[in-house]
Amino acid sequence: MPSTVEPFVQKNESRFLDELTDFLRIPSVSTLPEHKDDVARAARFVAGSLKRAGLENVEIISTARHPLIYADWLHAPGKPTVLCYGHYDVQPPDPLDLWTTPPFEPSIRNGNIYARGACDDKGQMFMHIKAAEALRDVHDGRLPVNLKFLIEGEEEVGGESISEYVPKHKDKLKADVALVSDTELFADGVPTLCIGLRGLIYTEIEAHGPARDLHSGMYGGAAPNAVYGLIELLSKAKDANGHIQIPGIYDDVVPPDPAEIESWNRLPFSEEQFLKEEVGSTQLTGEPDQSVFARVWARPTFEVHGIAGGFTGAGAKTVIPATATAKVSMRLVPKQDPQRVLSAFQSWVKANTPRGIRTQIRLLSSGPAISVNPNHPGIQIAARAFSEMLGKPTVFIRSGGSIPIVGEFATHLGIPTVLMGFGLPDDGLHSPNEKYRISNYYQGILTIAHFLDEYGKQQ
Amino acid sequence: MPSTVEPFVQKNESRFLDELTDFLRIPSVSTLPEHKDDVARAARFVAGSLKRAGLENVEIISTARHPLIYADWLHAPGKPTVLCYGHYDVQPPDPLDLWTTPPFEPSIRNGNIYARGACDDKGQMFMHIKAAEALRDVHDGRLPVNLKFLIEGEEEVGGESISEYVPKHKDKLKADVALVSDTELFADGVPTLCIGLRGLIYTEIEAHGPARDLHSGMYGGAAPNAVYGLIELLSKAKDANGHIQIPGIYDDVVPPDPAEIESWNRLPFSEEQFLKEEVGSTQLTGEPDQSVFARVWARPTFEVHGIAGGFTGAGAKTVIPATATAKVSMRLVPKQDPQRVLSAFQSWVKANTPRGIRTQIRLLSSGPAISVNPNHPGIQIAARAFSEMLGKPTVFIRSGGSIPIVGEFATHLGIPTVLMGFGLPDDGLHSPNEKYRISNYYQGILTIAHFLDEYGKQQ
Repeated sequence: MPSTVEPFVQKNESRFLDELTDFLRIPSVSTLPEHKDDVARAARFVAGSLKRAGLENVEIISTARHPLIYADWLHAPGKPTVLCYGHYDVQPPDPLDLWTTPPFEPSIRNGNIYARGACDDKGQMFMHIKAAEALRDVHDGRLPVNLKFLIEGEEEVGGESISEYVPKHKDKLKADVALVSDTELFADGVPTLCIGLRGLIYTEIEAHGPARDLHSGMYGGAAPNAVYGLIELLSKAKDANGHIQIPGIYDDVVPPDPAEIESWNRLPFSEEQFLKEEVGSTQLTGEPDQSVFARVWARPTFEVHGIAGGFTGAGAKTVIPATATAKVSMRLVPKQDPQRVLSAFQSWVKANTPRGIRTQIRLLSSGPAISVNPNHPGIQIAARAFSEMLGKPTVFIRSGGSIPIVGEFATHLGIPTVLMGFGLPDDGLHSPNEKYRISNYYQGILTIAHFLDEYGKQQ
Repeated sequence: MPSTVEPFVQKNESRFLDELTDFLRIPSVSTLPEHKDDVARAARFVAGSLKRAGLENVEIISTARHPLIYADWLHAPGKPTVLCYGHYDVQPPDPLDLWTTPPFEPSIRNGNIYARGACDDKGQMFMHIKAAEALRDVHDGRLPVNLKFLIEGEEEVGGESISEYVPKHKDKLKADVALVSDTELFADGVPTLCIGLRGLIYTEIEAHGPARDLHSGMYGGAAPNAVYGLIELLSKAKDANGHIQIPGIYDDVVPPDPAEIESWNRLPFSEEQFLKEEVGSTQLTGEPDQSVFARVWARPTFEVHGIAGGFTGAGAKTVIPATATAKVSMRLVPKQDPQRVLSAFQSWVKANTPRGIRTQIRLLSSGPAISVNPNHPGIQIAARAFSEMLGKPTVFIRSGGSIPIVGEFATHLGIPTVLMGFGLPDDGLHSPNEKYRISNYYQGILTIAHFLDEYGKQQ
């Protein structure tokens, strides 16, 4: 079944791609202070695009860090209201030397557009705006539903500002369902709705040993080494099977129900292909008694994202380092309370810090895991529309990532989120050479428009 | 007993200090390619100083990396020949932000001169040149012994060039004893000769996990993490008591003999003070069944000098890192064969690399431990001269550091080395705010001159 907007989208393909390309050129890296102005520029770009698409009440909302953007079109009385969410900030692009073309100079190769943020989330959130633009064109300046947009610039840094904004603006944001395109198709061509997301606690640990870097000849054997102390500590977090050793961390972990496991077993999946084509290592790791799906969707993790300490330049320097730092996160699954896990982690660090070493933990962000009820009408209609557009049954999966706003919408607005993403598993999110397939961009615009058309038929 | 050169040195104190200051201004960091020209400039500075001191046959010898400098004065027939060794290269100065004044802008405070290399080894090796200059002045242009100088610019990077040079120039370098000032007084005012040095194997380990950095949400729990893999591996190198777990590593370790232990017990030493004033941590670490002296002088070590991998910028980035690197060394004690220890280490790494991770080891430098015979006449006269100048008995100690050239001299020239250093334990070698006490600089010049005078009385 074709979408009503198909002719319009086809006619405008090259313009839609040019606009996305301009958007991707803006290095809106939210975590790096030197890109603050670029993030602001990206916000203005989004606001301008919303205005040109015919959205009203477009606001750039200043926050303590990076701006939020709000817009709406509320002229469909009696029709449902959809709250579109996305983010215009991106992950840092490093390591830069691994990019084939520069991360902020979008490059088209083999039907893909390569750039930081191409898929996560600029390319995907831009589809919402283009779908609205297309629907207004084919429906004589009207939309089939009421639409609200709330777009943030802090998703990659914990999303504090939107977390503060949502509970204070419940009426303004009132909707029947939220729509987020920040996930992926389970496999190429398979319509996929995500109904579960892991939560996240992200911290930084600093270890201190001697008061200053010491000569390793003169003090080696008797002086504590901050780098080694941190290594010793972190190594105790997991056993050789990847089982986390922090006491109590599995207490609230609920195994997925048998029906869900059964549906996972029907997904097109090759562990061999996952290992070779996606992970690209010699072996998978993790809990051997858990399936790969369970490991990445339904189990908590303990991950070290980065570590730095001592001398790491070219050649040799014989120091006993005074300090070392690591970025450490834990992914959470439904029922795990972030505060409780954080406390358990803090106690564990205290109890396991080696002698002679002092440690400090800083919390950088925190959010619970999310479950979406697959029986909600918005989700059901989305699944049907998705299936109609791609010509296959929609699969319901979870994602191991974290989109904290989905939890905020559930808690404060009482609405579920349609997690309808069009990324592909090899899009390289957070990696060098991130890409988004251009046909998925157009397909996403059509599918979102079709979902909104269909949802608008509900009273 | 005053040294014959005392009046000359006193008269020239400020010039001697100015010259050292000029020397310290040259950032001759041998490990950093961007300082190659500075290293060459330091070599020219040394050659010029030797010429002005009246040394002859001054040569700047090109090598594959940084130049060697040779000079001699051989007009004392029938007298012993002393081979003076030192190095004009320095360690990298980082972390720069911990220096009170910049590392290559020498600053005088509280009777100390602060600069990278002030003590290690520019300040100390320069004493040899100034002692020669002073002796020629007071002995009508002559020296009490034959002197040869061999100065290198690669001590901090493994000293490959001098290692190649020495065995090829045995006749040219023929001497009765070598003299090296690159060690420290055991305590302020205590004449100290070092008769043992640890060896060193310095390596770099690289760990590889996934083919690229992965999104930790989507892959966390199933994909190997290069940083965590390296952490797991390195954590297994020592138990909680600092006992190295590499099979066979203690096989050839010989405990110090009871007489030496007895002499260590008489050294003025407070573990509390060592902990608080030198190490500056909450506790010492290492093997509890070994004394602090044994731990730093007579036991092998396993040290991680630096580690880097993944995201370590400001804020949060949720990646599973593809690669990680660490600088890892082992200090060796007498009888340990570097090649055998390296093989044991390589096998251990292979056996303990976690699944999904690949590791590679690169050897950056290697040298055996050294023992000096305290009964050699050169050592005995040095001990007496030292004692006469400082008014206290000379103590014989070991050092935990490594001066590979001492082993080369023993092996290829068949001579022992007088390790007569004037640094202090808190001089901060290899650390920010490295210093050298100015009165020790003058004292060193007097003592070295006195030793050469006394040694010249031998036939």
